[in-house]
Amino acid sequence: MSPLPSGLADVRALTFDVFGTVVDWRSSVIHEGEALGRRYQLAVDWAAFADAWRGGYAPAMDRVRRGELPWTRLDQLHRMTLDRLLDDVGIAERLDEADKEHFNRVWHRLTPWPDSVAGMQRLRQRFILASLSNGNMSLLVNMAKHADLPWDCVLSAELAGHYKRDPEVYRMAAGLLDLEPGQIMMVAAHQDDLQAAHREGFRTAFVMRPLEHGPDAEPDLSADPCFDLVASDFHHLADQLEC
Amino acid sequence: MSPLPSGLADVRALTFDVFGTVVDWRSSVIHEGEALGRRYQLAVDWAAFADAWRGGYAPAMDRVRRGELPWTRLDQLHRMTLDRLLDDVGIAERLDEADKEHFNRVWHRLTPWPDSVAGMQRLRQRFILASLSNGNMSLLVNMAKHADLPWDCVLSAELAGHYKRDPEVYRMAAGLLDLEPGQIMMVAAHQDDLQAAHREGFRTAFVMRPLEHGPDAEPDLSADPCFDLVASDFHHLADQLEC
Repeated sequence: MSPLPSGLADVRALTFDVFGTVVDWRSSVIHEGEALGRRYQLAVDWAAFADAWRGGYAPAMDRVRRGELPWTRLDQLHRMTLDRLLDDVGIAERLDEADKEHFNRVWHRLTPWPDSVAGMQRLRQRFILASLSNGNMSLLVNMAKHADLPWDCVLSAELAGHYKRDPEVYRMAAGLLDLEPGQIMMVAAHQDDLQAAHREGFRTAFVMRPLEHGPDAEPDLSADPCFDLVASDFHHLADQLEC
Repeated sequence: MSPLPSGLADVRALTFDVFGTVVDWRSSVIHEGEALGRRYQLAVDWAAFADAWRGGYAPAMDRVRRGELPWTRLDQLHRMTLDRLLDDVGIAERLDEADKEHFNRVWHRLTPWPDSVAGMQRLRQRFILASLSNGNMSLLVNMAKHADLPWDCVLSAELAGHYKRDPEVYRMAAGLLDLEPGQIMMVAAHQDDLQAAHREGFRTAFVMRPLEHGPDAEPDLSADPCFDLVASDFHHLADQLEC
């Protein structure tokens, strides 16, 4: 194999953010919402619904972080937000419990970005690939099976009892992989995730996902000085890592 | 898909013991020991060495279980036993630290039984496949990469901070997979592992591995009433589970 770029020769494992970085949560939630809407003739703006659902994610994790909630897996946080949103748009009574539970698990059935699976297969030839997501273990396992994500190891914030960007999550990954932080590269589409990983000594790769928040959003795609690599997709990352 | 056998319709995941059930630890350790012996011209009975190394496993875990040692991952327990055995056979001074560390990680490079990978690929079409081993996470991840074991999820006693057959290990697996114990089937070549899983409510499949302890051993292959299935190998298990 060709040598790795200067400074990255020790990297043995890549840990991946998942929501937004590997999978396109927004299109997947809209798609299933629209199908549900057709079935029950619901007049709902599913794009706005998807954004609001995802928008409830950080505040819900903050409640865990502040100790207002005990450790609560993401499935349950998603469900709390979902129940509130269904009330807000006035359709909570139109759906039965099985519908709600099935829709809540749309996060187990998200679709990868077009380059994700093939790019990961290239990267996996050279590196250990592990998820490092706030999604709970069962969510990540089901998603991997649904989407054919070729993980060597599924790691979740659930194993640390802390959500990213708490440092305990990155330390858990290094501990379980039995690697030094500098032997691990965090791969994410979000600056703050990479900055938190960098503070723990991880290498960092920023993958631009300009469509994560939809075609009209203008996400911050600027590179931070702490990023070791910047890539337009997973193939571009594999190119830079000589895979 | 064909219906599952009566009483097993709820099974969603298979959790596997690894050493002896999925991989042939004894032949692998003997093979690498012989190579080391040739390199340094060491007169060692590597079959006896392998058996003694594995023989140190249960007493070492018992020291953790009794609290004489804090939580210690299996790599470290293996190394403690290895150092003692190298002393016993009088070759500790003949090997340098890099040799010892490499040999200790032979447990990361074990060879699957001939049916393991193909059988798992069949089983994976229908079930979530997870390891549930006393091996530490990095050992299991490296082994899976080395041997192409198609896990959906790597689970280890390390995640529970307890070794099998402590009940915490089985409970950890059910919790992380977010399944009821009765939705999980433990697959193992060892009666006591299955009995412990059964006590936690798991379904059980006994896979006979008559050669685990070598051609001259006479292992106990008797079926316990708590076993739901008995299989001669992973293909036979896949047949019975309609995969």
